[in-house]
Amino acid sequence: METELIGGLAATLTTASFLPQAARVIRTNDTAAISLWMYLLFTFGVALWGAYGLLIGSRPVVVANAVTLTLALVILVQKIRHVRAARTKSRPR
Amino acid sequence: METELIGGLAATLTTASFLPQAARVIRTNDTAAISLWMYLLFTFGVALWGAYGLLIGSRPVVVANAVTLTLALVILVQKIRHVRAARTKSRPR
Repeated sequence: METELIGGLAATLTTASFLPQAARVIRTNDTAAISLWMYLLFTFGVALWGAYGLLIGSRPVVVANAVTLTLALVILVQKIRHVRAARTKSRPR
Repeated sequence: METELIGGLAATLTTASFLPQAARVIRTNDTAAISLWMYLLFTFGVALWGAYGLLIGSRPVVVANAVTLTLALVILVQKIRHVRAARTKSRPR
């Protein structure tokens, strides 16, 4: 019983932790310190965790990773926008 | 067999993804866009995942989360330093 409680709390914390980061990125429109590579790798990894959850038939794994994937994509999309905008600015006219 | 491969790749990607973020924070010394709350919650969650791995006797879960915990702590410590430095600056003399 205790083990499942710790696993559930761990999943909740690591999933919920992306909420304040996504909110901050939207509020401040600042992603300068955020690593594009991190969110490219992380988003792909979390999608694979979701597929893994489907394969082993574990609803909590699927749900937790679907939420994390959504939040991570919000951050990734903002970062990609900023990287593109910076490139367009730096291109000679 | 395929399921374990997907799980292993997912764990590798989500763990490795914190390496470019930790490297960027050290290289640029910029954590402005990074959410303190994210890394407080995430670090605690990953530590719980490590404890969960010990309880279920899964070495891969323990090792992957130990690596992620180390990288997340590097980012968290830098962020706390910057938050403290900003507070000291803004305090009236």
